[in-house]
Amino acid sequence: MRAVVVTGEFGLDRIEISSRQATAPGPGEVQLKMSVASLNYRDLLMVQGAYNPRQPLPLVPCSDGVGTVSAVGTGVEVGDRVCPIFAQAWLAGEPTRAILRTTLGGPLDGTLQESMCVAASGTVPVPDYLSDEEAATLPCAAVTAWSALSTHGGVRAGDTVLVQGTGGVSIFALQLGKAMGARVIVTSSSDAKLERAKALGADATINYKQTPKWGDAARDLTGRRGVDHVVEVGGGGTLEQSLRAIRPGGTISIIGVLSGAAGTVNLLPVLMQNVRLQGIVVGHRESFASLMRALETSRIHPVIDRTFALEDTAEALRYLKTGAHFGKVCIRHS
Amino acid sequence: MRAVVVTGEFGLDRIEISSRQATAPGPGEVQLKMSVASLNYRDLLMVQGAYNPRQPLPLVPCSDGVGTVSAVGTGVEVGDRVCPIFAQAWLAGEPTRAILRTTLGGPLDGTLQESMCVAASGTVPVPDYLSDEEAATLPCAAVTAWSALSTHGGVRAGDTVLVQGTGGVSIFALQLGKAMGARVIVTSSSDAKLERAKALGADATINYKQTPKWGDAARDLTGRRGVDHVVEVGGGGTLEQSLRAIRPGGTISIIGVLSGAAGTVNLLPVLMQNVRLQGIVVGHRESFASLMRALETSRIHPVIDRTFALEDTAEALRYLKTGAHFGKVCIRHS
Amino acid sequence: MRAVVVTGEFGLDRIEISSRQATAPGPGEVQLKMSVASLNYRDLLMVQGAYNPRQPLPLVPCSDGVGTVSAVGTGVEVGDRVCPIFAQAWLAGEPTRAILRTTLGGPLDGTLQESMCVAASGTVPVPDYLSDEEAATLPCAAVTAWSALSTHGGVRAGDTVLVQGTGGVSIFALQLGKAMGARVIVTSSSDAKLERAKALGADATINYKQTPKWGDAARDLTGRRGVDHVVEVGGGGTLEQSLRAIRPGGTISIIGVLSGAAGTVNLLPVLMQNVRLQGIVVGHRESFASLMRALETSRIHPVIDRTFALEDTAEALRYLKTGAHFGKVCIRHS
Amino acid sequence: MRAVVVTGEFGLDRIEISSRQATAPGPGEVQLKMSVASLNYRDLLMVQGAYNPRQPLPLVPCSDGVGTVSAVGTGVEVGDRVCPIFAQAWLAGEPTRAILRTTLGGPLDGTLQESMCVAASGTVPVPDYLSDEEAATLPCAAVTAWSALSTHGGVRAGDTVLVQGTGGVSIFALQLGKAMGARVIVTSSSDAKLERAKALGADATINYKQTPKWGDAARDLTGRRGVDHVVEVGGGGTLEQSLRAIRPGGTISIIGVLSGAAGTVNLLPVLMQNVRLQGIVVGHRESFASLMRALETSRIHPVIDRTFALEDTAEALRYLKTGAHFGKVCIRHS
Repeated sequence: MRAVVVTGEFGLDRIEISSRQATAPGPGEVQLKMSVASLNYRDLLMVQGAYNPRQPLPLVPCSDGVGTVSAVGTGVEVGDRVCPIFAQAWLAGEPTRAILRTTLGGPLDGTLQESMCVAASGTVPVPDYLSDEEAATLPCAAVTAWSALSTHGGVRAGDTVLVQGTGGVSIFALQLGKAMGARVIVTSSSDAKLERAKALGADATINYKQTPKWGDAARDLTGRRGVDHVVEVGGGGTLEQSLRAIRPGGTISIIGVLSGAAGTVNLLPVLMQNVRLQGIVVGHRESFASLMRALETSRIHPVIDRTFALEDTAEALRYLKTGAHFGKVCIRHS
Repeated sequence: MRAVVVTGEFGLDRIEISSRQATAPGPGEVQLKMSVASLNYRDLLMVQGAYNPRQPLPLVPCSDGVGTVSAVGTGVEVGDRVCPIFAQAWLAGEPTRAILRTTLGGPLDGTLQESMCVAASGTVPVPDYLSDEEAATLPCAAVTAWSALSTHGGVRAGDTVLVQGTGGVSIFALQLGKAMGARVIVTSSSDAKLERAKALGADATINYKQTPKWGDAARDLTGRRGVDHVVEVGGGGTLEQSLRAIRPGGTISIIGVLSGAAGTVNLLPVLMQNVRLQGIVVGHRESFASLMRALETSRIHPVIDRTFALEDTAEALRYLKTGAHFGKVCIRHS
Repeated sequence: MRAVVVTGEFGLDRIEISSRQATAPGPGEVQLKMSVASLNYRDLLMVQGAYNPRQPLPLVPCSDGVGTVSAVGTGVEVGDRVCPIFAQAWLAGEPTRAILRTTLGGPLDGTLQESMCVAASGTVPVPDYLSDEEAATLPCAAVTAWSALSTHGGVRAGDTVLVQGTGGVSIFALQLGKAMGARVIVTSSSDAKLERAKALGADATINYKQTPKWGDAARDLTGRRGVDHVVEVGGGGTLEQSLRAIRPGGTISIIGVLSGAAGTVNLLPVLMQNVRLQGIVVGHRESFASLMRALETSRIHPVIDRTFALEDTAEALRYLKTGAHFGKVCIRHS
Repeated sequence: MRAVVVTGEFGLDRIEISSRQATAPGPGEVQLKMSVASLNYRDLLMVQGAYNPRQPLPLVPCSDGVGTVSAVGTGVEVGDRVCPIFAQAWLAGEPTRAILRTTLGGPLDGTLQESMCVAASGTVPVPDYLSDEEAATLPCAAVTAWSALSTHGGVRAGDTVLVQGTGGVSIFALQLGKAMGARVIVTSSSDAKLERAKALGADATINYKQTPKWGDAARDLTGRRGVDHVVEVGGGGTLEQSLRAIRPGGTISIIGVLSGAAGTVNLLPVLMQNVRLQGIVVGHRESFASLMRALETSRIHPVIDRTFALEDTAEALRYLKTGAHFGKVCIRHS
């Protein structure tokens, strides 16, 4: 079977298709025949060596994807179409450092291989109404948005959620926020993207190029009460405005690795308004499973921008790097 | 100004229209010019002396209603159209016995009077899109359903909620459950009412006359996983089936006074499935205010069955007693 | 190796010592050399066929115990002294019906065998300061008390906790309640046992034979505010008083299988006081692990009543049945 | 009656004793005969004009104190010895911007006056076992520590809490953490102060002058698991170490105004370890009342450093500024 690997050293031009022997599943494991993988910004950083320079090579990149159970080890029943979960050992409850090191696409080999074996407990069945491309986008971006809004954020119907930009997590936060009955405000520098956000259900939009003080603008949209929840993907540059937008006692979810740079924040407004900053590192299997029920009920369709062939993985990552996409970029295994 | 009062002794035929002097608001108070009141089963029990036989008379019945601020005491600004809240002293957090004795329609005089004074903090502004009739239905039934599902229940998008029957709380639970992204199952003995529930968004319905073991039927509708939340209004007779429907770790909200009779429950299934039974006695002002934001976003319209004139209050209560209504029964002050 | 088994049919006189081949650990498993087991009332019911008459035999009874890792399968490191957890597959989060069927001492073979294999993830290391007898008592009774008070109950320092009687769960609830900074009231029919409860830290005690309306007495002890939390082990007979003792918005943890009989409850006070009844079926691994840190800090010593030899298991169960014990009854494997 | 006032302009040398007419209580209000006030760093900043330069003058400074109800308005019963709460309108639940502007000692006149009137709902009775000095220290520092650990932090028995320094909030966090059954680590630059912390119950101490990487040292003290909760009072300089000390999923409470300077923080570790930063702006009346029950049970005595006379208020503030104190600085009204 074929696998995409980064070998020798990091870099987009170090991506190769390698032919490997498919492994048989061990006890408690399942073997997956993979059909589609989906890219996150983390995958680009990983391949370039910017995420973790000490990551041993060769590595099969990419944490998100979907496949069908092709063989099972002892004591596990054959399932259907499943996604492997991001942190393979994080089933529920609190994470530990050891658990946070069981992530696919580095340090563990990822989904860009035609066949892979994972623990049966490290998979979640996906709803039938989703295409393979759509299902493949769920493990990182959708679970992150869901953990932020639902598991940690406790967003209630009628709450106002502010979503920054139109990246993968942000679009899922928009769609899921609407499914939860929230009012959603979206920011972007592109009026065209804001139009697409409105078509997906955004109640209000702000072009942050035209309105650099978008935090105040967002607060105005709530009658000066402040928004209940911000999905913060931009890091230090945007956090100042987020702190102007948020209501006293509100929550700002920090998803900042997407910004590619660490942010700094003046803590005084955090303190003075009883605000919570909650770091979100994807989420556990229990959240993933409850998200599947939310999708089943809401019939949300993940937004797919474009799908590449397995042999065009480097090209797909270069496309991701341009930032021109709206929605997820996928890779078909065959 | 006119007020409906029960004088001398309890009974539907003891209801009179009385002419009273409107009171001026004290410091921190507002005077409301009431426009519509809305009936709950509790009001019927109260008037009949079945809710609290020691309630002193005369009493102005009815806890729910809407009015306009007509005068204010010192230190309070004039608001707009508001509802008085059910337990006047319950602003947020945990209730106390003293707080639970500050309820309108007994022991305190209620909303069936053309003018009333309450503390400014004991009111909540209502959204413009609602008619007076619609707004008048909110303080008990809608706040109870919201407290059950959202404040105490933590229902998430994709959860399955089972709603018993089509009384006031149950219809709000159906509408709010859908606004929160839940999947809602409704039971009733009437196929006609189940059809109306479907029109309001119910995902599945069960006729409990035709299917006495509706608890198992509900569980079957979740792929044998069990429903996440039951809004229990029927008391002992229905709780056994609710316990068959619920998933391990699920929540059953107890709204049982609507059944008019105390129920008994075998506690063993509660224990063995880690289930929670949560008593719900309406809710606090903070819940009421967050509900207003949920309505504003979802544009839910409360279902009004019929509106009577103030002088026909006894007739309205007799109509409520028949159980023929679907939705709320209201009384217009003029 | 020797194991205690119930064979052929249920009954205390069907308990035999059987000689079995020790199993080698499979992948992800550990083999434990068991040193002490500890009895719960559930074990007595199980052996008598009263807990689950359809339980297949032979069965090694008993869910609680402690042992040392003697061999490990692939991929697991050798640990130290550990307890196997009650529901082997419940690691954290919400339970499912499937998870609740992975309990030791039925349906799975239990701790009354000199050697047993369990998944490495189904064990928790125990603090050094505890003896083997003390450690063996933790998996059911202590984890149940901890789940009730801490995981589900959110008991805070200064809260008043009412503990019924002096059985295994109740004594742990007393000790853990004190370690959490709560005020603890204990009830019993025996003044001698109440004295021992005081020696363990009880702030107040009530003899329920002398004070049948102990619910009101407990409420009086809180200045009529009501207790914040009741650990309910007695079922229907005691719940009525618990509902008189509890404050509005308080929590009653249901641990009722200890009563040996299902209780019934008038739901009206539950509803009218916004009370929560929370079923507690032991707890998950994450709760067990956090309990170990609480023990490490508080240096609580589980109360051991008496220890029997493996060959005297039937005698030990008969002793448990008399109810004469104060604290846990243990069985040494050698 | 006498009051301490800052008039004309800000500054320690602008503090005067002024003779004022005592106000009679309005409806719903109580008049308090004040006996002791207690200083916080906020009071020093306020008097110097550094907290809010736009604060109108004259101002009676100081938010903390204790008094006895000397007269009551209509509808309120006479209470006993009470503390006025910090944010007079924050009774429970979520704060709003309007609520956060009802704080004593600016913008509202504070406790450094012999008589003051506040709403009855803006007071909390204090336990008898406390002296007036001890009781006067509670409204800001103790409520802040309690909100951080209990209301927002959910600290459980056995959790490890790291407390920075030995200021007012920190000593309360140490004492309350121990009362909750937590393990407490204290940092300071002074070995003498660390000795006093140990005498108050600290389980471990770190001199951060001798161990600049005290975050790693703290984590080592937990077997590399990480501490569960940090009470962060130092702002940007210390937060970096706090983020090294915390476990994945842990909480850092931000009390940073004590540092007198805004901090900045690298958000990446927040994100990557699923950490929560929770701003704490004192707390509401419900938290204050539950704290009183925790004190009643634990018999904690607030640590008093020194008490000044009303006419020596400026001297007391200068002493606070030196940082030489250990425990609270108080001012007696007579």
